[in-house]
Amino acid sequence: MLTAVLLAGLLIFAGSSAYFYFAGKNKNGLNSAFLVSFITLISYVLMWQGNLTVVTKAGQPILWTRWLFYGLSCTLLMYEIARLKKVQGERLVQLLYLTAIVMFAGLLAARDLTAVRWIHFVISSVAYILLVSQVFSVETAESQWVRYYIFFGWTVFPIVFVLAPTGFGLIGAAVANLLYLLLDIFTKIVFNVQLSRTA
Amino acid sequence: MLTAVLLAGLLIFAGSSAYFYFAGKNKNGLNSAFLVSFITLISYVLMWQGNLTVVTKAGQPILWTRWLFYGLSCTLLMYEIARLKKVQGERLVQLLYLTAIVMFAGLLAARDLTAVRWIHFVISSVAYILLVSQVFSVETAESQWVRYYIFFGWTVFPIVFVLAPTGFGLIGAAVANLLYLLLDIFTKIVFNVQLSRTA
Amino acid sequence: MLTAVLLAGLLIFAGSSAYFYFAGKNKNGLNSAFLVSFITLISYVLMWQGNLTVVTKAGQPILWTRWLFYGLSCTLLMYEIARLKKVQGERLVQLLYLTAIVMFAGLLAARDLTAVRWIHFVISSVAYILLVSQVFSVETAESQWVRYYIFFGWTVFPIVFVLAPTGFGLIGAAVANLLYLLLDIFTKIVFNVQLSRTA
Repeated sequence: MLTAVLLAGLLIFAGSSAYFYFAGKNKNGLNSAFLVSFITLISYVLMWQGNLTVVTKAGQPILWTRWLFYGLSCTLLMYEIARLKKVQGERLVQLLYLTAIVMFAGLLAARDLTAVRWIHFVISSVAYILLVSQVFSVETAESQWVRYYIFFGWTVFPIVFVLAPTGFGLIGAAVANLLYLLLDIFTKIVFNVQLSRTA
Repeated sequence: MLTAVLLAGLLIFAGSSAYFYFAGKNKNGLNSAFLVSFITLISYVLMWQGNLTVVTKAGQPILWTRWLFYGLSCTLLMYEIARLKKVQGERLVQLLYLTAIVMFAGLLAARDLTAVRWIHFVISSVAYILLVSQVFSVETAESQWVRYYIFFGWTVFPIVFVLAPTGFGLIGAAVANLLYLLLDIFTKIVFNVQLSRTA
Repeated sequence: MLTAVLLAGLLIFAGSSAYFYFAGKNKNGLNSAFLVSFITLISYVLMWQGNLTVVTKAGQPILWTRWLFYGLSCTLLMYEIARLKKVQGERLVQLLYLTAIVMFAGLLAARDLTAVRWIHFVISSVAYILLVSQVFSVETAESQWVRYYIFFGWTVFPIVFVLAPTGFGLIGAAVANLLYLLLDIFTKIVFNVQLSRTA
């Protein structure tokens, strides 16, 4: 079941990479919708292959490389959000740094099987709260929907993290990765389709 | 023989680092020729020491760290190519992202000994084709020679990858790394000497 | 004793993260003092947990991840120093690259238990000397004190490296990490307090 979920993710993001590449072909500049899908595709190939994982005492695999690739893809998503909100220069650099810290501390929390992982989780969460509060402090008419998107998209990731083998292990690796896949589709595909209609 | 090739690489890039440092000393700004050689020097020291490798079933070592350092040095080379072609802003960011993806997917393909490595190889190749097509879509009088340089320099890397233990294993690690060294000299030293004469 | 030093570092940088966050709250733009402390906090949590280390023949642990996080935090510190000295554009990119190379070659020197580590150490030192000479070549009235700060702060790191288990092992891991903690406090907290008074 876990393998099927990851293979589904691989195929979906291969498809969305092709879609966003051709949809954005005539656009000059940065096709971040394509790059985000393409980076996520590589992440799913690596998770599907199954090499770089740790295994919990309960025998559940933790696919911690996911968070490394989120560090790359979510900084691009944050760049898009910042552009929508017309945040530039040093304020933008701050948002990108915070995004990278959220994901990198998340990686450390996921790789660590001891109780210390909760410290990494708290640090990641603090960075996330600071990030969201700074994103929300800028209000523009065009970006109202982004607020709901972040609340229902990004904020569910740490909830899955806590329920999954990375946290209390209330759900198994297969269900956790299915939920992550749904969130990936929402935050990386649905969001970019919505964004292309707004812009 | 492999050790001799890597030691030769170490000495050559130590020399080219010194050469480009002093040649570019009076130039203000970014001495990328020096930085590219210096990063490649570190890569050769690490490969010569021989610690971070994987070994194929046929007993051939794969020096996958090479691709990590290409991620750093080739983004600098792409920056130089973009400057020559007057590509700036978001289009430049796109080229740098694609270059990093090519090398990072290449790293994953090199580290992976299963058949899944071919998926990483295809992804890296797709990113490379997109990169080259975007670079070639900008034509300036000064940059005609860059087209031939990329065709005969960059494009031979994936061919060596396929022939080497990372691919079908038709050539051994020593010959593969000798070919990579010749390509490194062409793309990182000869190119920068040529570039300094053009600019 | 080593664990106590690392726990002290964890608590100190948790405190300084909170302090710099609230001290810089009304400032727009990049709160790099906060980000530097926050990145260092994550580094201390990881070192305190004790997972990613190598052990020398003499049984001393080497906490090589320290240098990975320096790569992130010291590029931010260098950005602040460059801003003070009004260094921008490609010259700034060069300083940030050199800083990252110093720390990354330092990481390779720390991870390597063979004699080859001295080559990495020499490369890191060469990059450091080039970095400092380029920083010092720009003189502004406001930045006189930065010269002494770098001499007494940054330059002591490689001296500790040589004395510690990473070098000749004249001092143990506990003393080495205590010295690194004092240097971290000086270069990342005292410096930023001083900087906020200057700016």
